[in-house]
Amino acid sequence: MKIALDVMGGDNAPDSTIEGGLDALKECDDIFIYFVGPSTKINEKLDEFGVDDIKDRFEVVEASEVITNEEKPVEAIRKKKDSSLVKAVSLVRDNEADTAVTAGSTGAFMAAGYFVLRRIKGIDRPALAPIFPSASGYTIVLDVGSNMDAKPEHLLQYAKMGSIYAKGVFKIEKPTVGLLNVGTEEGKGNELTKKAYDLLKEADDINFKGNIEARDVPGGAVDVVVCDGFVGNVMLKFMEGAASFIFGSLKKEITKSFSRKVGAVMLKSAFSDFAKQMDYTEHGGAPLLGVKGALIKSHGSSDAKAIKNAILKQGKGLIESKVLEQFNNTI
Amino acid sequence: MKIALDVMGGDNAPDSTIEGGLDALKECDDIFIYFVGPSTKINEKLDEFGVDDIKDRFEVVEASEVITNEEKPVEAIRKKKDSSLVKAVSLVRDNEADTAVTAGSTGAFMAAGYFVLRRIKGIDRPALAPIFPSASGYTIVLDVGSNMDAKPEHLLQYAKMGSIYAKGVFKIEKPTVGLLNVGTEEGKGNELTKKAYDLLKEADDINFKGNIEARDVPGGAVDVVVCDGFVGNVMLKFMEGAASFIFGSLKKEITKSFSRKVGAVMLKSAFSDFAKQMDYTEHGGAPLLGVKGALIKSHGSSDAKAIKNAILKQGKGLIESKVLEQFNNTI
Repeated sequence: MKIALDVMGGDNAPDSTIEGGLDALKECDDIFIYFVGPSTKINEKLDEFGVDDIKDRFEVVEASEVITNEEKPVEAIRKKKDSSLVKAVSLVRDNEADTAVTAGSTGAFMAAGYFVLRRIKGIDRPALAPIFPSASGYTIVLDVGSNMDAKPEHLLQYAKMGSIYAKGVFKIEKPTVGLLNVGTEEGKGNELTKKAYDLLKEADDINFKGNIEARDVPGGAVDVVVCDGFVGNVMLKFMEGAASFIFGSLKKEITKSFSRKVGAVMLKSAFSDFAKQMDYTEHGGAPLLGVKGALIKSHGSSDAKAIKNAILKQGKGLIESKVLEQFNNTI
Repeated sequence: MKIALDVMGGDNAPDSTIEGGLDALKECDDIFIYFVGPSTKINEKLDEFGVDDIKDRFEVVEASEVITNEEKPVEAIRKKKDSSLVKAVSLVRDNEADTAVTAGSTGAFMAAGYFVLRRIKGIDRPALAPIFPSASGYTIVLDVGSNMDAKPEHLLQYAKMGSIYAKGVFKIEKPTVGLLNVGTEEGKGNELTKKAYDLLKEADDINFKGNIEARDVPGGAVDVVVCDGFVGNVMLKFMEGAASFIFGSLKKEITKSFSRKVGAVMLKSAFSDFAKQMDYTEHGGAPLLGVKGALIKSHGSSDAKAIKNAILKQGKGLIESKVLEQFNNTI
């Protein structure tokens, strides 16, 4: 299995990206990595880490340009043909690599999927599909930002893709699907969700459980949640903000007195087990579902571990599950 | 100041509602309460609690019907003229009461505002405006569910109402306003937010700070956040679900071993101080801004304390601030 790694993507690039790639190579024998980026710099780093034992399992691919978060995604993708992102995604398009992984600009990542790989037949809009931590372990939410003004039929396509993905990658036999709404009763919501409800209700290839409220997402009420990209993006980022606010407030409280500090020390392992549950680096990233190839977006602040997990858990998992081939045949 | 209390609203009605009303009467000398609901039941409860010392500061108003969460809001408001909710709101319309407080159905509450009190001139859509706990103390978000398919001009009206409310009730001199969006740069978002941005940017009577992301809401980046009611509702309910998930996971972790349990006991006061910060009962509810009168919605699971705070902090605060009169003159 061949992975194209965008070495220049993310806040901690290129050091953590390269390190994450090497960790993946060391942990898993049957992968090959293209390190895509400025070759001099990459080779320097690789020499530093020491790669003698794995040198036949990677290749450095020169890419002189970098796409930043500040650039307009579509424009950047079109102009910067020699960027690490476009080159990594092009390796997938040209069947040189099975999957591309990046921690770079989400907008550019989605634009690269859309314009370099192009959509799968039957999918009008690709969807970014991350995992939310929840009471049931994980809940897949799509879309969280690929498509800002979704139409009802897009939500139906998300439901189908999400179900195949949940079954293929997470081995859930009949994944339940919920429509994110402001109430659970039929007839609730805005114009989009009212129409989407009718479409989802009539689809016989998904296990539709009706409307769910946002509190049911962390509650783990269903396996797959569908919503338009604006709402999903708000929910994803609110989760990040709320977690950081809650941890911050809690930390302030537990360090206020000596006895509290002692108690906090005794609970150190509990807090760290808890933090692990909330930790995005555990899952390693989210796929862009609906394009012709496996693309994985890792969090912008990914460290080496997050990159490694994006490669091994998400990228490798997606390829092995043959989910994308199923999209082609069934949607 | 006269308060109309919907005694039958909420999961803990009528016991906690009546108790909350009595607590408010005992805590604050200059209020008068109409207990609106089935009079026999209310009188029974009042006798039980003992009300000799405050008997000239309340009145029981008979209302034989109850509107439930399961009913269609608009239909219920129109048909059930003798419901505790419609009667309480009618007391405000008829200038018998200064404000009405309910913990009942949010939909019916909003419909009552819209159809019984009616809109203030210049406001096309009222907005439900709760407080989110945040790093800066509190952040006012509007709308969270009154208006499902908002138009750009509605968001401008929310920004103006939210600013006057933040200044009047929370004494913030020049409240900052943020437009909830998927990125901070101008030009980001869906059709609604792109157009709303232009309107907000040009308004000279608000302190507009541009787009904010959902992570900035708990982050406390601005005083007032505007968004359409669907998105706001998702964020509000996600917050509830996330808090309950996080508390649940944390509790599981800290009770896993004996030493952890000991540590947890030492941190008991820290956890309770922390929980207080997250506690919706502290704020007591949210006003429906933009209708001709002060209406306060308390959480459906309100206990007596939440009802008391809805009356004293929200209801009384809103009346004293004369915010509604300012809406009339300036929007």
